[in-house]
This record gives sequence, C-alpha cells and structure tokens, in this order.
Amino acid sequence: MKLEFKKDALLNGINIVSKAIPSRTTMSILECILIDADASEIKLTGNDMELGIETKVEGSVLERGKIALEAKLFYEIIRKLPDGDTPVVITSDNRFNTVIECENAVFNIQGRDGEEFSYLPYIERNQHISLTQFTLKEAIRQTIFSISPNDSNKMMAGELLEVKDDFLKVVSLDGHRISIRNIQLKEHYDNHKVIVPGKTLSEISKILTGDNEKEVLIYFSKNHILFEFDDTVVVSRLIDGEYFKIDHMLSSDYETRVKLNKRDFMDNIDRAMILIRDSDRKPIIMNVEDNNVNMKVKSAFGSMNANVPAHKSGKDIMIAFNPKFLLDALRVIDDEDVELYMMNPKSPCFIKDEEGTYIYLILPVNFINEA
Amino acid sequence: MKLEFKKDALLNGINIVSKAIPSRTTMSILECILIDADASEIKLTGNDMELGIETKVEGSVLERGKIALEAKLFYEIIRKLPDGDTPVVITSDNRFNTVIECENAVFNIQGRDGEEFSYLPYIERNQHISLTQFTLKEAIRQTIFSISPNDSNKMMAGELLEVKDDFLKVVSLDGHRISIRNIQLKEHYDNHKVIVPGKTLSEISKILTGDNEKEVLIYFSKNHILFEFDDTVVVSRLIDGEYFKIDHMLSSDYETRVKLNKRDFMDNIDRAMILIRDSDRKPIIMNVEDNNVNMKVKSAFGSMNANVPAHKSGKDIMIAFNPKFLLDALRVIDDEDVELYMMNPKSPCFIKDEEGTYIYLILPVNFINEA
Repeated sequence: MKLEFKKDALLNGINIVSKAIPSRTTMSILECILIDADASEIKLTGNDMELGIETKVEGSVLERGKIALEAKLFYEIIRKLPDGDTPVVITSDNRFNTVIECENAVFNIQGRDGEEFSYLPYIERNQHISLTQFTLKEAIRQTIFSISPNDSNKMMAGELLEVKDDFLKVVSLDGHRISIRNIQLKEHYDNHKVIVPGKTLSEISKILTGDNEKEVLIYFSKNHILFEFDDTVVVSRLIDGEYFKIDHMLSSDYETRVKLNKRDFMDNIDRAMILIRDSDRKPIIMNVEDNNVNMKVKSAFGSMNANVPAHKSGKDIMIAFNPKFLLDALRVIDDEDVELYMMNPKSPCFIKDEEGTYIYLILPVNFINEA
Repeated sequence: MKLEFKKDALLNGINIVSKAIPSRTTMSILECILIDADASEIKLTGNDMELGIETKVEGSVLERGKIALEAKLFYEIIRKLPDGDTPVVITSDNRFNTVIECENAVFNIQGRDGEEFSYLPYIERNQHISLTQFTLKEAIRQTIFSISPNDSNKMMAGELLEVKDDFLKVVSLDGHRISIRNIQLKEHYDNHKVIVPGKTLSEISKILTGDNEKEVLIYFSKNHILFEFDDTVVVSRLIDGEYFKIDHMLSSDYETRVKLNKRDFMDNIDRAMILIRDSDRKPIIMNVEDNNVNMKVKSAFGSMNANVPAHKSGKDIMIAFNPKFLLDALRVIDDEDVELYMMNPKSPCFIKDEEGTYIYLILPVNFINEA
C-alpha cells in the first residue's frame, strides 16, 4: 500500500474516527484505525463495536491496500509532522511494516493486518430523516447533561429520539429531572422511537461542525442508528427496551409563573454554589414574591442571600432546588429571560418557552430543615 | 472593620498573596489571608512560613480592623461577585463574623482573629540589588526547569543567586544537567551568594508582570531574601548550606561545534519523543556530520529518523541524549539558531551563546546497546 495525503486532511480524518476508539479495551485491534485504500478512495474507520465511525479522506492511492495502525501513535505522529505543503506518504509492506514520511522525518511503525479489523455493520438506508448539523448539535448540547451514564437503569444512559410526523423530540432524564427538545422538521416522516447511547450523541456532537447550511441524514434500523454528514458515517447500536413514559409527568397547570433575567438568575446560583460541596447537598431556597425572587443558601462554610428582580403571576411560593440542576438547564437555554412554572413546593418546576421548543422539568428538594 | 474595594483591585491582591497559601497544611490559620486595615492603608498577607507575600490593595478604610479569611473561599466569593462599578464592602464584627456585599448579593462567612496570623519576618532593608521585572521573570523561566524538587539533596530544590560586582548569576542543576543565566546589572553591588527555594522563584515569576520598565528590588539577609516590586513584598527563607561548585565542570574546550536552526532541531526531538515513554528511557542518537545532524530513536513503538541541516566545525561525533533534557533547554532559548559544543560521547555537551548569557550543560547517555 502506498498513499499520499495532505497533512491537514489526514489529521482531520484521524480526529473524526478517533472518537470511536475505546480508551480501554482488551481487544487491541479496537485501538487501531483502519486505513482502507482497497478501492480508489481512502477511508478511515474506528470501531469500538458499539459505535463505529467511517470517514473519507482526500489523498492519492499510489498502491492499493489496507492497514490497521494504533490510533494514538498514528495521531501523534501525523500531528507532529511538519506543517506545509509537503505531502505525507504512508507505505506498508506485506508484513505490515509501515513507513510514514514527510520532509526530512521518517517514522517506522508496526501496523496490523486490515483483515483483522471489524467493519461497521451494514445498515439498509431507506428510512431516514434530515436536519441541519446546527440543529442536531444544539439538540444534543441542550439535553445531554441530564443523562445518567452510570445508573443501573441502562435507559438513563441514553436519549430518546422520537420522530412523529414533522417533529423530532429529544428526551433525556436521570430521575431528578427531564430535558426535552422539540424540533420542527421540514417534512413529514415515518414514525420512529429509538434510544441512542449518550456516548454516541456526545461523540457525534464533537464531530459535527454545527453548520446551519449542512445536512445530517439519520437512518433508523431495528438495532442501529446511522448518521451521515460531510464525508462521514456514524453507526451506533441502540439501547434495547421501552423508554420511560414521560407524558403523564408533564403538565401545563401551574400556580406560580415567574420570569427572570437568565444571566442574573444564573450568576446568583453560581455564587450560592461556592458554599456548597457535593457531599453536603445543601439546596438553594427560593422565595418567589411579586417583583423579586430571594435566593438563599446556608452551609458549614457560611451563607449567601441574593435578590433577583422578577415578574411573577399567581401565588407566592417558597421552593428549594439542587442548584446544579437549575444551572445545568439555564446554561443551555439561549433566551435572555426564562420562565419558571410551579405548582407547589413538592411538585416539579418547569422551565420552558411558550412554543414548547424546550422543556426542563426539575424536581424540588425538601428544605424544612434548612429554612 | 469596614472596608470598601473595587472588585478588580481586591481580586488582584487576593491572587497575588494566594501564591503563598499552602495547598495542604495542618495549621488551618495558614490557609487564611490576613486583611490588615489597622492603619490607613489595606494590606493582604499570605504566609506558609517558608514563603510570605504581602501586597497593598487600594480601597477605603471606613472602620479600621483586621480579619483572617479562608483563602479559597474568599477568592471564590470575590471572583464571582458582579463585575462593574458597585464597590465590594467587607464588614466584620468583634466575633469575626464577616459580611461581604456587592450589589444584590450578600455573603456571610466566619472569619478568624487577625492576631492569630503569623506576620512576615522582619528583614532589614539595606543591602539590595535592582533589576527589571522582565529580566527576573526571564531568568527564572530559563533555569527553573532543571531544579530537582524531590531530590534527597535539598540544594537541588533551589537555585543559586550569586551577585558579583555588576553581575547576577542564576544557577540550577539536577545531577544530569546545569542551567546558568548571567545577567549584567546596571551598578556594582556587594557580593552575595544565596540558595533560593525553587517554589519561591516559580511563585514570584507568576506574580511578576514581566514589565521591562518596572524594577524589582532584591534584599539579602542571613536567612531570608526579600523581593519588592509594585505594591508587593515577597519574603522567603533561604536554603541553608553550600551550593555545588560548578566552575570546574564548565569548560570552553571542545572538539565539535555545531550550529542548528533551533525550531527545526526542537521539532525533530519532539517527534522522536512520540516513540518514547518515561519508563523506557530511550535516548535520541545524534550523528553530527559536516552539513547535517542525523537524529534517530528506536523503541518498542517503532523508530524515527530525521536529518537537520547544520554547520559543523571540528570532528564528526555520534552522541546520545535524553531528548527531554535537550528540549527543556531549547524551549527557553530565544535565539533562532543554537550552538552545541561537544568534546566526546561521554563528556557534557554545552548549549551556549557567545556572550555567555546562557549556558546549558547536558550529560550525554550511553547508546552502545541502541545504535
């Protein structure tokens, strides 16, 4: 095999497929990136058996072939080659000895037989939806924080992707909160309901450029989901099972509705958290009155008290939250003001916009002993 | 006590004195910053008993007093207060309850009696030298990497500062290499020879702005060194004992002198290091010929070979080094080209400029089994 690349194009390709290289594995072939130049084009593949990524890289095939190279070493070598126009030449012989050359630097490393490498599962590409890279990247960012990857309930390690007519709903939850994003699609599609591993979504969002002009096609099969964008294909296993029924937890009833400046609200939660350690789980207590939300926290380190101007309608309420949960949701909301809907100090609080493009449900905590 | 500050000025002061707050200590008062407003000015102090830093902070003394506040908490609270023109007001009562207020946020924390705090040792300020902040910061950066803080020989955890007439010499060494910076001073001074803890120097270099127009005054006493710059005073204990005699290790004889482009040389060492893990200690082997230095490394991960154009005078030589030691020295040299002086494969290599402003001595390593 003999291939010629521009450094930047190759490095970009390695970066993309490296997202599917497991950090720990007992199968050393999974730590490799496959370079497949058996045909006229060059493809790189990384595959940890749950998540597989394949991307085309521009380059010249001077001699066809394939080889698997240890991903980290391959990445480091290419990264540190001279910048500039001199091409990177990769040659491997029939004993998988691989030579990587650029300008006056020559590396010799031992590759492995490309045949040992596990190809991505074959997915039939008939049922798909389409959305922009920007929209998908945003939807992941706005929900991924409330999965619970280490929970005994494997469903919580994933997110629900539900296609219904011309809407895509993305849901994550961890037992204390629920995050929902509703996305209007351009067309009506067949209905689908799948649970995608959180790891898949967070790795994809790192690869997506977030371009508003570029499309992502998403294909569904029984056990897999496939994302196609730019020159890249991402295939992931789905999480098996029935996702939580959340509709009965959502309610549009409320007794108190309060509108706050998001920045001001966040800054004061952030301040309160200075006094809280994960171990002591002190809540932030909010006292919602007509034109003001008073926030306070008290811990072994001291106390904080802050007032945030607000517009309230409905009843006054005193309610307490884990401040981190509030902050996680507020951080991903792009609006200048946010609205909170509350029923009573023991019922969930909803942070949502009027159009329902996002809904964050957060369970309050007990504060009898704190007040 | 009641004081009023601008947030930025206070935060800057806390930042400076925090460099003397120990990360672990059994004496909890050392984790505090002293705010001393007993007189008309406000001083902050941090002191870990080896290193003490005191800085003046602009602010209004509405009511005199002093208080010690836990450094990390104090820093976090001030950092997260609203930016802008609203002053930060700090009030403490006679039970050391401390209130920190800014705009609509109010913190209550428990302070401690300022009297418990250890003041900096008194140093008589008569014998001093003067140099620019820039020069001192650079001299530290260019030598600090070759101290050996964890060595059983405590001298290796410090640097020699030697004043002789109108020269300051700064030296560090770790048994494998020596770094020397010679600095021309503007005046003749009394001679001094002290060993300053590396930690003191690295913390000072973080505080120094590196301004070429601003001076640092350095005062010497029997057991301490004092640095005075801007509104800050840093006092450090000295390391007791006689520093290594290095003059007999320095020699201007050489058999081979080779000049290389520093960037090119560094880049190839950097590449070679991809294949080396700390544990296997593989050397980089340099073969110095008339117009070329060939560099190679071989490890369990593969091999690298690179050629760097060079100007050589004297004999050809093959010599091997720990690549990290070469890289550490090259990184801090600001010249475009560097010159290496070598005697034979078992004698130290010198990297130095013609004026002797810097000298890096590096011991070669054995490469019989590697070539």
